[in-house]
Amino acid sequence: MANRLEEFKSYRLRMNDRIAKIDHLGIKRFFNLDTRAYENGALDAKTKELLGLVASTVLRCNDCIDYHIVQCVDAGWKDEEIYDALNVGLIVGGSIVVPHLRHAVESLDLARAEKNGGSVRQPD
Amino acid sequence: MANRLEEFKSYRLRMNDRIAKIDHLGIKRFFNLDTRAYENGALDAKTKELLGLVASTVLRCNDCIDYHIVQCVDAGWKDEEIYDALNVGLIVGGSIVVPHLRHAVESLDLARAEKNGGSVRQPD
Amino acid sequence: MANRLEEFKSYRLRMNDRIAKIDHLGIKRFFNLDTRAYENGALDAKTKELLGLVASTVLRCNDCIDYHIVQCVDAGWKDEEIYDALNVGLIVGGSIVVPHLRHAVESLDLARAEKNGGSVRQPD
Amino acid sequence: MANRLEEFKSYRLRMNDRIAKIDHLGIKRFFNLDTRAYENGALDAKTKELLGLVASTVLRCNDCIDYHIVQCVDAGWKDEEIYDALNVGLIVGGSIVVPHLRHAVESLDLARAEKNGGSVRQPD
Amino acid sequence: MANRLEEFKSYRLRMNDRIAKIDHLGIKRFFNLDTRAYENGALDAKTKELLGLVASTVLRCNDCIDYHIVQCVDAGWKDEEIYDALNVGLIVGGSIVVPHLRHAVESLDLARAEKNGGSVRQPD
Amino acid sequence: MANRLEEFKSYRLRMNDRIAKIDHLGIKRFFNLDTRAYENGALDAKTKELLGLVASTVLRCNDCIDYHIVQCVDAGWKDEEIYDALNVGLIVGGSIVVPHLRHAVESLDLARAEKNGGSVRQPD
Repeated sequence: MANRLEEFKSYRLRMNDRIAKIDHLGIKRFFNLDTRAYENGALDAKTKELLGLVASTVLRCNDCIDYHIVQCVDAGWKDEEIYDALNVGLIVGGSIVVPHLRHAVESLDLARAEKNGGSVRQPD
Repeated sequence: MANRLEEFKSYRLRMNDRIAKIDHLGIKRFFNLDTRAYENGALDAKTKELLGLVASTVLRCNDCIDYHIVQCVDAGWKDEEIYDALNVGLIVGGSIVVPHLRHAVESLDLARAEKNGGSVRQPD
Repeated sequence: MANRLEEFKSYRLRMNDRIAKIDHLGIKRFFNLDTRAYENGALDAKTKELLGLVASTVLRCNDCIDYHIVQCVDAGWKDEEIYDALNVGLIVGGSIVVPHLRHAVESLDLARAEKNGGSVRQPD
Repeated sequence: MANRLEEFKSYRLRMNDRIAKIDHLGIKRFFNLDTRAYENGALDAKTKELLGLVASTVLRCNDCIDYHIVQCVDAGWKDEEIYDALNVGLIVGGSIVVPHLRHAVESLDLARAEKNGGSVRQPD
Repeated sequence: MANRLEEFKSYRLRMNDRIAKIDHLGIKRFFNLDTRAYENGALDAKTKELLGLVASTVLRCNDCIDYHIVQCVDAGWKDEEIYDALNVGLIVGGSIVVPHLRHAVESLDLARAEKNGGSVRQPD
Repeated sequence: MANRLEEFKSYRLRMNDRIAKIDHLGIKRFFNLDTRAYENGALDAKTKELLGLVASTVLRCNDCIDYHIVQCVDAGWKDEEIYDALNVGLIVGGSIVVPHLRHAVESLDLARAEKNGGSVRQPD
């Protein structure tokens, strides 16, 4: 049985496929622009993922947090660095961010477990 | 005559002094915590200023943008890197961020002019 | 078994009934005012539902999106028109809106399926 | 010459008069409902003004903060109590609230000065 | 089987324990500051919980609403008073708050049921 | 001497020119996408301007409101229709929107005065 991070990833893919079938140039172009915003440029892709994580944290979007947590792990950010970035998000955004900090830390644990292969730790 | 960035900096200092006189431990501690969030830690201070700038951009706070633009310039970020960070903020936050992008770019120009000494370029 | 759109509609009705039992004139009047805001006036009801959908999209409220998606379908808006309205919401609100765009498109599919009678298509 | 709090109050009155001339029942009723929300009810009016101040602070609306600061002063809240309420807003809303805390404290000083008659202290 | 309020409380405790294991002074201090913000000060703890509830309502955070609803019940606020506070949140925040009002009222019913011991009323 | 709507329009043009000089493909493309979002499509341009106005109102962005007010006037929307759209924004967004409603109504008056040529009515 999939954990919530895997469920999110599969829902995201399924709905992105569905949206890709919509015949609307503006929507298609925005999705393309969104992808490109995190590619290497004046800043490297790794730094940009951290920017995306903090932006998602202060705007309090769990799905966006999940996406960028996975990307940050893939990009090679260490836990301590991710916590430090989340702390910036917490101080900027205040205690209203706390439920999303809980979510982010749980997602990070799930992403690490998946990365480490073997048993994906389920929340108890 | 001071430009708007200098006016902001002087207003900020004056009101921070006023707030420092308030006998409230919670407020004092929060200000301290806020300062520390941008100091070297698992992430370096330079990276954190960029995180602060993007967080301020997506939350659409001009005063916060001004503060972090000045800090980013002082930390050694180049214009191209700051534009690339602002682009992440723009894509995450959408066109509602555009007025704050205008503000950020103008503040960056003012901060550079001040840095370069000599005449602080006024917006025409 | 009900899909998530039907579950939302039934939860909404149940809790609106519960709230209607609260003896508070301000709350009652606000609910009344909210209903009236979408009735025919200088603008027709159909246009107002689209305004409500875009407002709900940029404010990133899934329940509100679900409500207005159903209303937009009932009011006779076509899929292409709803996509075009959602695109305005996407551009104004940025990529932080994307998870809500996914939700909106899924809700639209569920609402159309229900409208078309027969089998309500479950998300796979 | 009027200070910024007096300017806000006069602008607010002028535009409320302008809006009152709009022939739209929904707008009229909302303004009425808004006024009533702060009148004595299960909670007394004094408590509700503090709720309004904290809501305005976390939503980062300077005009709303100014309005409720004046109301809180009129309702008899002491400076220490208002600071304690603003601290709740600061912790809930984070450092993005700081510019609005500066604004609120300055407005409180202006409101007190006006209340104490004599010379209204201008920000230096 | 636990209702959603009990599930939230147990998730909150579990993740707060997890976060407490993170070796980051800033995060620890923020959590401490957050707790202290609601303790007796110039304002009493009871009043501050109501401020926290209204702030959570207008910022539309269901987890934060749940936490403060439980705290408000424990602090001795009556239903009528809580409804009156929620009405302030509703008027300030508008219809986008309505789904969170539904959530808050349901949470209040669950918290009362738990308080009254015996059978915890499940939403039908 | 220019009124505040004219000042905004000139500032917007000047800063858009400045931003156009930034060598960043993502920013350029976003501006292009933003322009296209309001062009005739499945929905006509006139309807989309109203969607943009309501989105700007609930997101509480005065510059965005000013831009779309001018566009709505140019697109042929009547005052009564614009008020009806603003009412939707007011009900969705609540009293925190009121300062932006004041701004919008004042901007509408300024835009009409300019449209009617002759003397641009200054706020008294």
